[in-house]
Amino acid sequence: MSTVHAYGFVSSTSPCRPLEIERRAPGPYDVLFNIAYCGICHSDIHTARSEWGPARYPLVVGHEITGIVREIGSKVTKVKVGDRVGVGCMVDSCGQCDYCRQGMEQFCSKGVWTYGSMGYDGKVTQGGYSQAITVQEHFVFQIPEAISLEDAAPLLCAGITTYSPLKRWVSPGMKVAVVGLGGLGHIGVQIAAAMGAEVSVISHTRSKEADGIAFGAQHYYATTEEGTFSKLAGQFDVILTTVSSTDDYTDYINSLNKTGVIVNVGMPAAPLEIYMRALTPRRTLQGSLIGGAAETQDMLQFCAEHGVRPRIEMISADQITAAYDSVIGSKVRYRYVIDAQTIHDR
Amino acid sequence: MSTVHAYGFVSSTSPCRPLEIERRAPGPYDVLFNIAYCGICHSDIHTARSEWGPARYPLVVGHEITGIVREIGSKVTKVKVGDRVGVGCMVDSCGQCDYCRQGMEQFCSKGVWTYGSMGYDGKVTQGGYSQAITVQEHFVFQIPEAISLEDAAPLLCAGITTYSPLKRWVSPGMKVAVVGLGGLGHIGVQIAAAMGAEVSVISHTRSKEADGIAFGAQHYYATTEEGTFSKLAGQFDVILTTVSSTDDYTDYINSLNKTGVIVNVGMPAAPLEIYMRALTPRRTLQGSLIGGAAETQDMLQFCAEHGVRPRIEMISADQITAAYDSVIGSKVRYRYVIDAQTIHDR
Repeated sequence: MSTVHAYGFVSSTSPCRPLEIERRAPGPYDVLFNIAYCGICHSDIHTARSEWGPARYPLVVGHEITGIVREIGSKVTKVKVGDRVGVGCMVDSCGQCDYCRQGMEQFCSKGVWTYGSMGYDGKVTQGGYSQAITVQEHFVFQIPEAISLEDAAPLLCAGITTYSPLKRWVSPGMKVAVVGLGGLGHIGVQIAAAMGAEVSVISHTRSKEADGIAFGAQHYYATTEEGTFSKLAGQFDVILTTVSSTDDYTDYINSLNKTGVIVNVGMPAAPLEIYMRALTPRRTLQGSLIGGAAETQDMLQFCAEHGVRPRIEMISADQITAAYDSVIGSKVRYRYVIDAQTIHDR
Repeated sequence: MSTVHAYGFVSSTSPCRPLEIERRAPGPYDVLFNIAYCGICHSDIHTARSEWGPARYPLVVGHEITGIVREIGSKVTKVKVGDRVGVGCMVDSCGQCDYCRQGMEQFCSKGVWTYGSMGYDGKVTQGGYSQAITVQEHFVFQIPEAISLEDAAPLLCAGITTYSPLKRWVSPGMKVAVVGLGGLGHIGVQIAAAMGAEVSVISHTRSKEADGIAFGAQHYYATTEEGTFSKLAGQFDVILTTVSSTDDYTDYINSLNKTGVIVNVGMPAAPLEIYMRALTPRRTLQGSLIGGAAETQDMLQFCAEHGVRPRIEMISADQITAAYDSVIGSKVRYRYVIDAQTIHDR
């Protein structure tokens, strides 16, 4: 067991402040690594502020974590000391159930989330806004040489969240729309373009149009402009929506062709109003939740090969609270990454 | 051109009464057949009463049509005079678009519905509550010897509507629930069971339990009984809902396993309230609309081989208006079929 510095929350209304937490000494299948970077995901904010149900405090969030292996358990074969590694939203699962055996560990009913979850060691898990972390090797991924550790961090959540549904549905030549150009969307656009799709961004306004095109979109539409949805009717094979707004859903569904698929990874809390008449012909609305362990490693390889990189803004730990305000205000371009060197006790 | 007797509607509030309509002489690719039977589908009622938008009167409905070929066009190769044939919800399509070429004629933007639609001959189509009909050969199906013409009729709409989504999603051993045991549901249960699924019926009450089991269900659940949905949580691979009620949707979605699929063919007019949190993990909500031409012929073959038969009640044409009341009141067990011999001018 070792004590490490971290930044976390003591209540739903506290700022993000220095804390000390314990990390377990690596068991036979564990990897202990020094954290270099951790991305800030909107989920961190929802959880830290108990917006998704009461959190257990003190709580350290962060599930877009990269670093360098410091120590491995006696039976670890996947990585060695000094390797460049990453961890995403999960740190453990049962390994036995149908989901685990089929590489869908994220659906394991005994899965352990990276923070705020009860670990197999009987302790509540603490996330990546910290100096080091101990994780079961199955959930530790190799970062390909082509990707820097700071760029790799957001891929561990935002990357896999968009890659998994796009991989499931997109073939070369398809018309794909990404709704929202934020932390998820700006990676989704790049991945869909790299898969050979003809990509459109659908955003509220044109303020990010140049960025959208730079990320690989061929078309850019603003929903606040009159007539946008009538232009889009029947256009898309796949729509990936990354926003939590529940407006305009019938319009989005009607923007699909008759067998099109809309996947929502924006986690809206309010219900969507879905007219079956819009889904009939044979349209599909699907949920999607990150991806499995093997799929996450595939995603990193895919991003390495195709030059998919998040656009990040590096911050120090004492800027986290301000960064949260920017995320909530949609001002971030496009992902904050915390330099873990700045996490200490002052 | 020939004049035939029919039963139809002169306004949204008229009873179903004798009418005369014209049928075109067969063009080169047309089949003219004497109608033996026509099933009554709930869609007939919605359309006849202008509940799905204003209908064009006088209107003859009916799209579950079987009979015997009387005359064929010079280039028809698919059937010959005397063949036992059927027609479902479509009578024509462009034959050129991507959907038509992929066997999904039901999504053709120039598709022609069996009634109330503008035909390629410039006339509004009139349906199967009549003595004869002329149809493009592509939409005329052979009725397998094993199936009587009266049993085949409801398969042309209710059969293909349930077969198509079940064929798309069900594999042997899967747990499948059919919601609603009516005209669609009682065929869906049989098809799913014939596909090797472990089938459950989910109904409002237990009044049809014995029938559900007889149709091949292994389990029967009543939603009005306390605790039903907590028992069902996470149970099903596939749910086929055949009802137009929009209640309990979150409960149904939560009855899926984490990658389960719910297909709605009940055509509810009101919107569903869908919580993405329920659809996330990776659950799927899909629309489905009848099936393509080749798929319809496959369905007939499948039903012939597996003994899938509708349970029908034969009526005469002068009982149609009363039958509509029974359909609306959910009293039909399980599909009315009109004996076309009873269609004449009195």
